[in-house]
Amino acid sequence: MARSIYLAGPEVFLPDAAAIGAEKRRICAQYGFTGLFPLDNGLDPQPGKSLSAAIFTANMKMLAGADFILANLTPFRGISADVGTVVELGAAYAMGKPVFGYSNVRGTLVERVAALPAFLPLSDGADGRRYAADGLAVEDFGLVDNLMIAEALHCSGTGILVPDDDVVDKERDLGTFERCVRAIAAA
Amino acid sequence: MARSIYLAGPEVFLPDAAAIGAEKRRICAQYGFTGLFPLDNGLDPQPGKSLSAAIFTANMKMLAGADFILANLTPFRGISADVGTVVELGAAYAMGKPVFGYSNVRGTLVERVAALPAFLPLSDGADGRRYAADGLAVEDFGLVDNLMIAEALHCSGTGILVPDDDVVDKERDLGTFERCVRAIAAA
Repeated sequence: MARSIYLAGPEVFLPDAAAIGAEKRRICAQYGFTGLFPLDNGLDPQPGKSLSAAIFTANMKMLAGADFILANLTPFRGISADVGTVVELGAAYAMGKPVFGYSNVRGTLVERVAALPAFLPLSDGADGRRYAADGLAVEDFGLVDNLMIAEALHCSGTGILVPDDDVVDKERDLGTFERCVRAIAAA
Repeated sequence: MARSIYLAGPEVFLPDAAAIGAEKRRICAQYGFTGLFPLDNGLDPQPGKSLSAAIFTANMKMLAGADFILANLTPFRGISADVGTVVELGAAYAMGKPVFGYSNVRGTLVERVAALPAFLPLSDGADGRRYAADGLAVEDFGLVDNLMIAEALHCSGTGILVPDDDVVDKERDLGTFERCVRAIAAA
């Protein structure tokens, strides 16, 4: 049976989510994998149970059955990845599944913070850390996102892959996604 | 031996992180728990291993040894919780640990999105979902944060606790934190 990859990411929030999911599955199949896209899980809402609980349960069940997770970590409405995707990434790591991921936005977390006027000026704290204007330290490890995300991936042998050049449609570009699928095939 | 609670949250980014950690541990002890605060893990960087990898490994080890996780889910530099905290929440859920959490910011995710000019206007999509100006749907389940976070907590019997009234210092207020510790003691 083909090994399967859980396709985590904020695509579920796009109006054309189903089409993107189909395209991601097609690319997975090209490399011999079954892609599991969250929208495809059969929702079976129990009486007295909310739709959100049914989605959570279905996603976690689909994830538990996958061999790998491939997370789209493109920043979502802010400086970091979509938190729903990140819950799944943490769960997959704890389940012992190899964690792969990409972001369609190049650059590091600290560069994104430093580009937002609301967080400026950055200053040096007495503890040797850099602080943003909100009074909170900025992680400065040269990583694409928070270290707990990036290092969960490093345990699988890769970091967060990013495109070589800026992409036109960061919500839909699948070039770096395909590089991840190739990395999984080579793993 | 006292049961232990892993104290996940963005306090590690505060200049007075150690003091807040000590106060959280004191509150835990008051209810008979050992509080495990990420800054307290002994870092043992291996030769050739980065500091970020050492922090990740130490946090995950501390989490694996805990009986519960209590996550500070106060929005961090945006509309949702700190992603580092969320990785730990997902991992704890997958490890089968009861997940508790709070936010010092009242209101729902959709209310926070609707309060930010960058995401306005919201509009109704053909698929029945509400969309923000960024072209992505806004989760509208009446939950305090993304459903994958909120439902991981519901599995433990609570939702994300929030204060009854606005707090003065959302980074440091521990009133709702203490309510969570009481909820764990009662669980």
